[in-house]
Amino acid sequence: MIRVGVIGATGYAGQQLVWLLNKHTKTNIIFLTSYNYSDVSYDSIYRSYKGFLDNSCIDIHEAEEKLNSIDLLFIALPHGKSFDIVKKALALGVKVIDLGADYRLKSSSEYKEWYKLDHQYVDALSESVYGLPELYKEDIKDANLIANPGCYPTASILALAPLLKHGLIDASSIIIDAKSGVSGAGRSAKIANIFCECNESIKAYGIASHRHTPEIEQELSNIYGDNIALSFTPHLVPMNRGILATSYGSLSKDITNEDLITVYKDYYKDKRFVRVIDDVPETRWVKGTNLCDVTAKIDKRTNRVIAVSAIDNLMKGAASQAVQNMNIMFGLDESESLDLLAMAP
Amino acid sequence: MIRVGVIGATGYAGQQLVWLLNKHTKTNIIFLTSYNYSDVSYDSIYRSYKGFLDNSCIDIHEAEEKLNSIDLLFIALPHGKSFDIVKKALALGVKVIDLGADYRLKSSSEYKEWYKLDHQYVDALSESVYGLPELYKEDIKDANLIANPGCYPTASILALAPLLKHGLIDASSIIIDAKSGVSGAGRSAKIANIFCECNESIKAYGIASHRHTPEIEQELSNIYGDNIALSFTPHLVPMNRGILATSYGSLSKDITNEDLITVYKDYYKDKRFVRVIDDVPETRWVKGTNLCDVTAKIDKRTNRVIAVSAIDNLMKGAASQAVQNMNIMFGLDESESLDLLAMAP
Amino acid sequence: MIRVGVIGATGYAGQQLVWLLNKHTKTNIIFLTSYNYSDVSYDSIYRSYKGFLDNSCIDIHEAEEKLNSIDLLFIALPHGKSFDIVKKALALGVKVIDLGADYRLKSSSEYKEWYKLDHQYVDALSESVYGLPELYKEDIKDANLIANPGCYPTASILALAPLLKHGLIDASSIIIDAKSGVSGAGRSAKIANIFCECNESIKAYGIASHRHTPEIEQELSNIYGDNIALSFTPHLVPMNRGILATSYGSLSKDITNEDLITVYKDYYKDKRFVRVIDDVPETRWVKGTNLCDVTAKIDKRTNRVIAVSAIDNLMKGAASQAVQNMNIMFGLDESESLDLLAMAP
Amino acid sequence: MIRVGVIGATGYAGQQLVWLLNKHTKTNIIFLTSYNYSDVSYDSIYRSYKGFLDNSCIDIHEAEEKLNSIDLLFIALPHGKSFDIVKKALALGVKVIDLGADYRLKSSSEYKEWYKLDHQYVDALSESVYGLPELYKEDIKDANLIANPGCYPTASILALAPLLKHGLIDASSIIIDAKSGVSGAGRSAKIANIFCECNESIKAYGIASHRHTPEIEQELSNIYGDNIALSFTPHLVPMNRGILATSYGSLSKDITNEDLITVYKDYYKDKRFVRVIDDVPETRWVKGTNLCDVTAKIDKRTNRVIAVSAIDNLMKGAASQAVQNMNIMFGLDESESLDLLAMAP
Repeated sequence: MIRVGVIGATGYAGQQLVWLLNKHTKTNIIFLTSYNYSDVSYDSIYRSYKGFLDNSCIDIHEAEEKLNSIDLLFIALPHGKSFDIVKKALALGVKVIDLGADYRLKSSSEYKEWYKLDHQYVDALSESVYGLPELYKEDIKDANLIANPGCYPTASILALAPLLKHGLIDASSIIIDAKSGVSGAGRSAKIANIFCECNESIKAYGIASHRHTPEIEQELSNIYGDNIALSFTPHLVPMNRGILATSYGSLSKDITNEDLITVYKDYYKDKRFVRVIDDVPETRWVKGTNLCDVTAKIDKRTNRVIAVSAIDNLMKGAASQAVQNMNIMFGLDESESLDLLAMAP
Repeated sequence: MIRVGVIGATGYAGQQLVWLLNKHTKTNIIFLTSYNYSDVSYDSIYRSYKGFLDNSCIDIHEAEEKLNSIDLLFIALPHGKSFDIVKKALALGVKVIDLGADYRLKSSSEYKEWYKLDHQYVDALSESVYGLPELYKEDIKDANLIANPGCYPTASILALAPLLKHGLIDASSIIIDAKSGVSGAGRSAKIANIFCECNESIKAYGIASHRHTPEIEQELSNIYGDNIALSFTPHLVPMNRGILATSYGSLSKDITNEDLITVYKDYYKDKRFVRVIDDVPETRWVKGTNLCDVTAKIDKRTNRVIAVSAIDNLMKGAASQAVQNMNIMFGLDESESLDLLAMAP
Repeated sequence: MIRVGVIGATGYAGQQLVWLLNKHTKTNIIFLTSYNYSDVSYDSIYRSYKGFLDNSCIDIHEAEEKLNSIDLLFIALPHGKSFDIVKKALALGVKVIDLGADYRLKSSSEYKEWYKLDHQYVDALSESVYGLPELYKEDIKDANLIANPGCYPTASILALAPLLKHGLIDASSIIIDAKSGVSGAGRSAKIANIFCECNESIKAYGIASHRHTPEIEQELSNIYGDNIALSFTPHLVPMNRGILATSYGSLSKDITNEDLITVYKDYYKDKRFVRVIDDVPETRWVKGTNLCDVTAKIDKRTNRVIAVSAIDNLMKGAASQAVQNMNIMFGLDESESLDLLAMAP
Repeated sequence: MIRVGVIGATGYAGQQLVWLLNKHTKTNIIFLTSYNYSDVSYDSIYRSYKGFLDNSCIDIHEAEEKLNSIDLLFIALPHGKSFDIVKKALALGVKVIDLGADYRLKSSSEYKEWYKLDHQYVDALSESVYGLPELYKEDIKDANLIANPGCYPTASILALAPLLKHGLIDASSIIIDAKSGVSGAGRSAKIANIFCECNESIKAYGIASHRHTPEIEQELSNIYGDNIALSFTPHLVPMNRGILATSYGSLSKDITNEDLITVYKDYYKDKRFVRVIDDVPETRWVKGTNLCDVTAKIDKRTNRVIAVSAIDNLMKGAASQAVQNMNIMFGLDESESLDLLAMAP
């Protein structure tokens, strides 16, 4: 059994992770920490857990004392809060999967530019592996530190990777218009998050400035083999979960719709969590799963590809992807305890 | 492995059942039928199933030909449609769990009064077992025909049973005010069901006339030992799933809040799917599970008990309760493949 | 023109009031106050107002300086915060309509019992008029201080008044099961209010303890002519607006459904904001209006009346009722600027 | 008073129009027609209207007999159904505002290509005026036949017009990613429209094939002075109302964010229904109004403009724009009875 600890277990991503670890057949939860709910029983915060989990949350300092009793540390903290604990865990030989943003960007200056913060553990950046298993499975196997991808980057990269791998689109033409459920805004008590402020409305935010932009660019640049700058616009949609990303690129080669789908199917042929479909993805079909549904269609009149991808932002966009990474790191089957079918409606 | 067939697999309850059977470790799905989608692949109706289930739906007549290849038949049809197929199945020694209403009322005249239809298989009524395992587990073990309870009755009976068992309330004082998500209205293309007609509104319906009333009365009367007439009012709430039932009764004995909770905890002490809680239930904590959360509080000023229960209408109110019945009928652990923790948010 | 000030203009009820005053043909808004947004332009808080209202919020102390420039002060504060300003306003001859709870209960000891606070302006209680125009129109005309009714009491009292007026039900049998949209919880940044905690769930709260209970009892007792104790259970429903109250009482006289409706129609025959209907009310049909839709049906099997009423909690349950009171106080037509038809869907 | 008739009064756009006409100070409703509800009282279909409107619906043939008793005919029918009645109305000198698609495209061959139907009243195409008052106010004054714009085109054209007028973007680079509430799918009883199929999910549809594409292109080409082909992707969002359009174009000139906003403010300086704002639009701030909120921001890293616009799809995207056109055609103030402030929350 893999002994795990979770830092930041009461945010939405952290809780989703606890949900998955609770049902995982190969893990033992050793501790859960919470900044706001230290010493509080987990099932009084999320009352669904009554009868399933009897842990109480501890604080991060207690957790540091317990690092030597775990094999793997999951971290689900806001950016900039993970430096100390990661250093300590790695020094003790504890593997780390960070669901936050601190180790995703390989460049500490990009980190500073976008997160307005000096990176305080630069040495880890070269060692960390970007935990998108569809791209980096081999590296993940041997990694000690996984930078679990952001929710928008997961949906965006999986939609665009086949196109860039095959040079099918003009790399300067990429636009990603993404839509997320409100859980993406986190479990924080702000006026902007309250029901009546979100319900029955849609808005864009972070236009030309969202922090997931450089992460998407870094990874797509790697695939493409050259630097890519792109436009990324996130939107908030009145639903709990789900991300739909609609990505646009100008075709640089002649290709039919059928061949385009074939390119995608080939690219993802051994990737069981990506479903290339002919229909248009809807977030409800992947809700509560580790799946990414993706399709691509050609807009002949404008010579563009329009790729649409759907994920659950808390799952493939956060917690279940972290478990997928764990499975790979610890030699388990990649889909161990992740064989989840969306519950509809 | 239990070989099962599902009649009516594309309605919401039927689909939820398929979802559960698909993940059940001890069942094989032999066939699925659909009235509207005969010959259509299941994963093109519910696209979540792509990669999980490759069945196509058949029609009910084809299903009749295949009855000898199954051990158990689930039926999820509108009332009045099950008579023939149940007769045929039972004649062949196939066990039946009917999620519909045709075998719940023991009195065929009550059936006619409330459903406006002559019952066409009266002989089965004495044989059928009301499939609420918290009340009838022993009978379910040996049953050939299970009348799976309605969604509102499940929530209502579980909330009131301990009170009536112990004669704590005046049996003539019972009022049940229940609230359901829209999936309770079924997957049918009616104006009243479309998004904009349901969203951002709440309504009562079936006042003093809903068909679940006699079912609740029948079962509570059994527990109480005398005939009970009660008021039941269902409401439609703008959410996909969940039933919250708020039940009222006038106290006939002196009892404290603490003792009241103890009565409930004793009554349900071996029932793993009923959680007696001190807090007030919310449907989100049982969504996607076979659980019923229940509490009771005394309104001292009026000398009433107010019991609140929450279930998922498609799960404990339909499909997962059917699987719980199957587990019991076939000698499996009652909770086999039903150890489901609600996914929040 | 009536010169008005609004204390607490940025909460949901306060804002709804501003919305109404802005379109009212006979009022001038002199000032708006806000605790959290003092000196902030109103249209930067509620961006809908851009081009409609160019006020900035002031704080309550500045407002006190301006009392002599207004004819009427509206107050939309949490309970216990209005004592000082009401005293000052009345002393200056400024009329007051308080949307809060401080002057609704005629008994200061009841106030203390339910609100856990000593009432600090007891003298005003005898003078204040309970501002439910369907009951107290004549008193409202001459009032200097209006206690604008709570949202749940408005829906509940209007549903039950005709029954009690005519002694049609047993006064000890009353149960009110009410359901409210989330705006009823106010515009406050609490975890319990955030989108993902409210969406896709329903809960009861304040069981046997909600502060609107004594207010309903006081008013129904007045109508009935004797003290009434009743059970009141509020619920939170995932929608922005609306209250549906389902009220139960045991019939004490023989009456037909038709005669029952006639009783209601007679009782409300000159009341243009109460619509007695044969169908069952839905909150969507009164959303954004000052209307209360109400019906009553007999449950013959249990000899009960079930009355269902629907209002918009922010309108007839708060702001538009306040404007209705203003219209009456200042000799305008009762429906001046309140002729609002619900916008659907 | 303008005497008006409405063909198709029970669809969502038709009903919204009735709502506006009911409160309009200068119109009399002479008749309402409905295909599905002929001879049914309007207030039994939309129960909000009880006490406001006592019309019953008639059928379109009865309406033809009454054309000589009206000054203006509104039509809210599916495409292809308006040809006969428009011909008859115009022949009688009755002015027509068609909320449908039949007279928007000036080219009958484009109409055939996109709508798969031969246009049966080609003569009207040259005469009809595209009823976007911000572009064509002068023509509208004298028009007999107004082609009221589609909902997506209204939002899209208003967002992009200033950019194309001033040649600020490369006309071949335009991408419009639009999101609509479910009322945009109409009031029709289809499985795809029912609550549980739409709620808690988002999807794209009509990729590279939506019929509003040529309409947007036609109007933007007119402004630009040359043919434009663009990509347009609509999405369905789980809310009743609202369209948010996010539009992208590559900058062809150097310009600052400040100057860009100035360009928009100048372009719309006399247009009271377009609010150029610095913040990012949200649909809730324009819900229930004739307003379009719009902003534009430069993405410096990619040298693109991202313009975001928000409207209410049933109002500025349909019914209130039709009333705005009526006001202009009949010499009233453009904003007569359209001075609507969004009701929030």
